[in-house]
Amino acid sequence: MAQHSLEQQLSFLREIDRLKSVVRQSPLLDATRRENSAEHSWHLAMYAVVLKDYANGPVNTNRVIRMLLLHDIVEIDVGDMPIHGGTSGAVQAEQEAVAARRIFGLLPAAQGEAMLALWQEFEAAETEDARFAKALDRFQPLLINVFTGGGTWSESRVTCEQVIQRYGPAIKRGSPELWTLCEQWVTRHFSA
Amino acid sequence: MAQHSLEQQLSFLREIDRLKSVVRQSPLLDATRRENSAEHSWHLAMYAVVLKDYANGPVNTNRVIRMLLLHDIVEIDVGDMPIHGGTSGAVQAEQEAVAARRIFGLLPAAQGEAMLALWQEFEAAETEDARFAKALDRFQPLLINVFTGGGTWSESRVTCEQVIQRYGPAIKRGSPELWTLCEQWVTRHFSA
Repeated sequence: MAQHSLEQQLSFLREIDRLKSVVRQSPLLDATRRENSAEHSWHLAMYAVVLKDYANGPVNTNRVIRMLLLHDIVEIDVGDMPIHGGTSGAVQAEQEAVAARRIFGLLPAAQGEAMLALWQEFEAAETEDARFAKALDRFQPLLINVFTGGGTWSESRVTCEQVIQRYGPAIKRGSPELWTLCEQWVTRHFSA
Repeated sequence: MAQHSLEQQLSFLREIDRLKSVVRQSPLLDATRRENSAEHSWHLAMYAVVLKDYANGPVNTNRVIRMLLLHDIVEIDVGDMPIHGGTSGAVQAEQEAVAARRIFGLLPAAQGEAMLALWQEFEAAETEDARFAKALDRFQPLLINVFTGGGTWSESRVTCEQVIQRYGPAIKRGSPELWTLCEQWVTRHFSA
């Protein structure tokens, strides 16, 4: 039984290697290539470690880190859905739910269910932990766009109003303080 | 002051973006390219989440995860030192210590010192947390080599005895159970 559990766990760990091949829209800060979802997840976990004090309410940073480590694993099956892409939210949510059940289902049952529950909590964005995690997941690409002189905003011809509308609610809800900074960045960026 | 702290924290988070451009020896499991140290760090954090019960002694998984998230950040300055490369351990350790002070020194003092201490704990490998983290850091590339039909072992013409000698002590000390599995894999691999 223990041997079988370990086989399931290693099967899961091998499967998620594929997240390294899911390419996001956002570039690296040096603009040499686009970021992949595995390294993005690592970076976000470091954002949580470093920026924990900017959460809107009390958060359990360790849970936030774990959420961010696994939040994009569903993209192995469904790919990265660009924020400026126009995919239907309901269709995307259903595809991702199927992917989550398949991939976390590779694990021993109790472990897989716990991980699925954490992913669902992230998606629902109703707890402070999930809201802070969601805020960081929006904040990081916004920072990239600002510090690469436009990034995906320039490519997609996004307006200042669209940026405020697409990033604002999630960042503000999880971290009003970071959103205040973002507003300054965005205003400066689009008036330059 | 708070504003200055946030600037320091964002400066650190931008700096560590460079870890995505540090290329390791190990390939991805699909062998399409080599792994970088940022996505490797993400994967190892997931190894800690999933394999926590295989630690040799009681560990604080949250500390292990944090250690693994930051354990390679020094490579931004010094690069990845291949296990089969023959670099002097003392020279490498000194270069990495300088890098750690520079990079974690970008953070507000208290936060940077805490992170430096966690990195030093990992390097010293004297606590159970650090030993388990070190074991995973050796286990993951071994798994890759086995599941890619040789990987860096074939490239470097490494013998079975060298594999046992270079990976064994660290894995066995942090996780005897995982090492038992590794021995089976390695024996089978080199007798094939």
